[in-house]
Amino acid sequence: MFLINGRFSDSVSVQDRGLQYGDGIFETIAMWKGKSLCWEAHYRRLEEGCKRLGMHCPTEDLLSSEIHQLPVTGPRSVVKIIVTRGPGGRGYQPPDPTPTPTRILGLFPWPDFPPEHATAGIKARICSTRLGKNPQLAGIKHLNRLEQVLARGEWSSPDIAEGLMLDCDNAIIEGTMSNLFCVKDDVLITPDLSSCGIAGIIRGYILESATQLNIETSIQTFTRRELFSMDELFLCNSVIGIWPIREIEQGAFALGPRTLEIRALLIRKEIIAE
Amino acid sequence: MFLINGRFSDSVSVQDRGLQYGDGIFETIAMWKGKSLCWEAHYRRLEEGCKRLGMHCPTEDLLSSEIHQLPVTGPRSVVKIIVTRGPGGRGYQPPDPTPTPTRILGLFPWPDFPPEHATAGIKARICSTRLGKNPQLAGIKHLNRLEQVLARGEWSSPDIAEGLMLDCDNAIIEGTMSNLFCVKDDVLITPDLSSCGIAGIIRGYILESATQLNIETSIQTFTRRELFSMDELFLCNSVIGIWPIREIEQGAFALGPRTLEIRALLIRKEIIAE
Repeated sequence: MFLINGRFSDSVSVQDRGLQYGDGIFETIAMWKGKSLCWEAHYRRLEEGCKRLGMHCPTEDLLSSEIHQLPVTGPRSVVKIIVTRGPGGRGYQPPDPTPTPTRILGLFPWPDFPPEHATAGIKARICSTRLGKNPQLAGIKHLNRLEQVLARGEWSSPDIAEGLMLDCDNAIIEGTMSNLFCVKDDVLITPDLSSCGIAGIIRGYILESATQLNIETSIQTFTRRELFSMDELFLCNSVIGIWPIREIEQGAFALGPRTLEIRALLIRKEIIAE
Repeated sequence: MFLINGRFSDSVSVQDRGLQYGDGIFETIAMWKGKSLCWEAHYRRLEEGCKRLGMHCPTEDLLSSEIHQLPVTGPRSVVKIIVTRGPGGRGYQPPDPTPTPTRILGLFPWPDFPPEHATAGIKARICSTRLGKNPQLAGIKHLNRLEQVLARGEWSSPDIAEGLMLDCDNAIIEGTMSNLFCVKDDVLITPDLSSCGIAGIIRGYILESATQLNIETSIQTFTRRELFSMDELFLCNSVIGIWPIREIEQGAFALGPRTLEIRALLIRKEIIAE
C-alpha cells in the first residue's frame, strides 16, 4: 500500500531520480498503538538528509498528515518514507529550478522476526562486503544502499539474524540494517560514523538516555579484535528495537545487565515497541 | 520514450529495488547512423556488473532486439539501459529465488553539447565532492550515483563543461560523467580505477588502441599537483567522444597532437560519433 505524492498508487515515473541515481533519502518508522514512534527525530534526520543533498524537504505537517492517511490496522506496522529529488534533469546535474521532491509512503506489516531475538539475543556474523568511506554522505539515510544489499546477500540461514559491516580500513561500523553498541568495563561504546554508516534514530536516543542511567558513553573506532573483547553487545533500529548479540562466529557474549536495562528504558519511554 | 520489460511505458513499480536501494546497473550507448556504437563492450560491462551484484543479466539478444524496437530517428541519439534486480524482497536481502531483472530502455535526443567541445577543447573544474573507495563496487556502472549527482551540482555555469573528481585520499579519478586521460612525455596515463570510478567503454578502447599508435600507456595514481604538470589532458565517454581539456582553474593545457590523433582514430573506427 503506497501513497505517492498524495495519491494511492503503486508506480513511479521511470524518470524519477530516485531510480535513475538513488538520488533521495528514506526513513523507516515503527507504528505502535497508532503512534509513529520517534516521529520528530525521523523528520529531523530526513530534513538533514535533504539539506545535505541540496533537495527540498516536504514539510513535517504534510508528511505527518500523509502517514495518517495510511490504513494502519493492528497494533504494530511499519511505514517507510522515501523522498527523492523528483523527476528529470539532464544527466547527473540536479534540475534547475529545484523540482518538487517525490514523496513515497509505504505501509508494511510488522516483520516476523522471532520475539526471542529481543529477549534471548541473536547470532550475528561478520560480512565481507565493506562500507566505503565518504564523510559527505555519512550518517544520512540516502538511497545508495548497494553495500547493504550485497552484505545482506552474503547469508540466507535464518539462524543468523544480522551481519556486521567493517569499513575499508577494518573498523567495525554497524549492522546491515542496525547500529551496534558494546559495553566494556561499564562504558557504553558505539562506532564513530563520521566517515560511513547511518546515524540511527534509536542509536541517538540510546546515547541520550545513557546519561539518565549514569552510564558513561564513548563514540570510537575499533577493530574486529577489540569487538571480541567486549562484555556485552547489542544492535538497535526503529523496528527491531534492541537485539542482544549472544554469538558472533566463534565468540560468545553474555546477555548483559546494561543491554536489558537500556531496552527496558526505551520501551518504557515508548521509543521502541515491546 | 521508454521500453520497460518489453512494453512502452513511463512508470515502474514503486517496489522495484532500483528505486528502493539503487540495486542495479546501467549503460549509456551512442546510436550513430543506425548502429549502437561499441554494443559488445557495453553488453560485456553490463554482464560483469550484474555478475558482481549477483543478479541475472538479460541476454544480449533480448536487449539488442529491444534497442531495435526503439523509434530511433535522425543520425544521432542516445539509448540508456537500466537493469535492476527487480521488485521485492524483505529489506536489503535480495529475494530468493533471484527475480527476473527489470529492463528499462530509454531513448533520448543527442545532448546539445557545443561541437567545439570536441574540436577546440573545454574548461573543466575540480569538484569538492569526493569518491568513496570500495573495490567491490569499483569499475561497474551501478545505480548508486549520489557522489556524481552532488559533484555535478557544484556548478551551473555553461562555461565549465565537466568537473574532475578526487577520491578521499586525494587521487584524481575521473570526471563526473567521463574518464580522464593525460599525456606526459609521450606516455598516455589514465587513473587507476581499482578502488573507485567507472571503467568507461571508451577508456577501454583508448587503452587498446594506443598500442596500434605505438603509444606507451600507464594506469596509475596521481594527485592534483601532478595533474597540472601534464602535457595534454582529455576526457572521454560514449556520447561526448573525446573532449580535450584546455583549462582547469589556473592551469592551461595545449590541444595536443596525441589527443587529436586518438580522437581521429576512434572516429575512423566508429567507436565514437563524429
